[in-house]
Amino acid sequence: MKILGIDPGSRATGYGIIEKQGSELSFVAAGAIKTTPGASMPVRIKQIFAGLTQVIALEKPDTAAIEQVFMATNPDAALKLGQARGAAIAAMTALDLEVSEYTARQIKQSAAGYGAASKEQMQHMVAKLLRYDEPLSFDAADALACAICHAHFNHSLNKLLGTTANTAVNARRKKGRWRL
Amino acid sequence: MKILGIDPGSRATGYGIIEKQGSELSFVAAGAIKTTPGASMPVRIKQIFAGLTQVIALEKPDTAAIEQVFMATNPDAALKLGQARGAAIAAMTALDLEVSEYTARQIKQSAAGYGAASKEQMQHMVAKLLRYDEPLSFDAADALACAICHAHFNHSLNKLLGTTANTAVNARRKKGRWRL
Repeated sequence: MKILGIDPGSRATGYGIIEKQGSELSFVAAGAIKTTPGASMPVRIKQIFAGLTQVIALEKPDTAAIEQVFMATNPDAALKLGQARGAAIAAMTALDLEVSEYTARQIKQSAAGYGAASKEQMQHMVAKLLRYDEPLSFDAADALACAICHAHFNHSLNKLLGTTANTAVNARRKKGRWRL
Repeated sequence: MKILGIDPGSRATGYGIIEKQGSELSFVAAGAIKTTPGASMPVRIKQIFAGLTQVIALEKPDTAAIEQVFMATNPDAALKLGQARGAAIAAMTALDLEVSEYTARQIKQSAAGYGAASKEQMQHMVAKLLRYDEPLSFDAADALACAICHAHFNHSLNKLLGTTANTAVNARRKKGRWRL
């Protein structure tokens, strides 16, 4: 199962894709969609939407996750973040991806084992967990952390229900393989 | 020229379409895309994006406008409004519509002749200006006001430049007519 994680932002929207096989997680791709500095919000939104649509078309993830933002401290920052988040979720849901939401605490706990981990700790732990040696930007690391969190929660839920991971998706993919 | 105006919101996103022929404005369509009460933000964003995509496919506007939000008072409301706005702009720009932004003051001044007009005054003046007798919701009236503002600013700009309204679009449409 391929999982897409997103760390939205109006200047840069991080994305990270991991593959989950059993309880094994591996790195597939990560990066950031950077918007033109000084451009209007409609132009930035178009860039985020188009960039993410391209990533999804290329990598074909089975499911997606994004950080749930409960409260922002600054109304102006909240408005900008909200618009980037709206554009990113629009791109994912327009391509029929189911989008799960996790709190910052859940994501940090999953990726770094510590709900108040710093950006640097997250960057370090995400690379270690995925055995990835190349440098990762904060945006990409946060997006990968979100995907890792989704993999863990999905796994726990499936263990709880006594089923294999994401039954519907697996069935579809297996069917695809049989056809090959 | 057909102009689409948008009044975004996470519970209801108003839309209004007007036709501009010379300096004459007329009503084409208006309504609101209502999201499922209690649904998650990804579900609401999907509904806004899909609803607006449908409106644009049906009415085929030539250009679009949305209120520019400079500052919000409440961070939580800003985050919700931002996401709805991001989804709406994503739908418009994904279909290659150019989106102009106007301040609330510019929109109220254009539609009601008074920059601090109330919602009720706007509703009344928009209906009068477009000679539209049916009841209009606040969302639809605000969206139509945004389209009216775009028509006025476009007109002033064109007078200033000594050209006819939106030359590129007119050329394309005329070409279409010649083919018929």
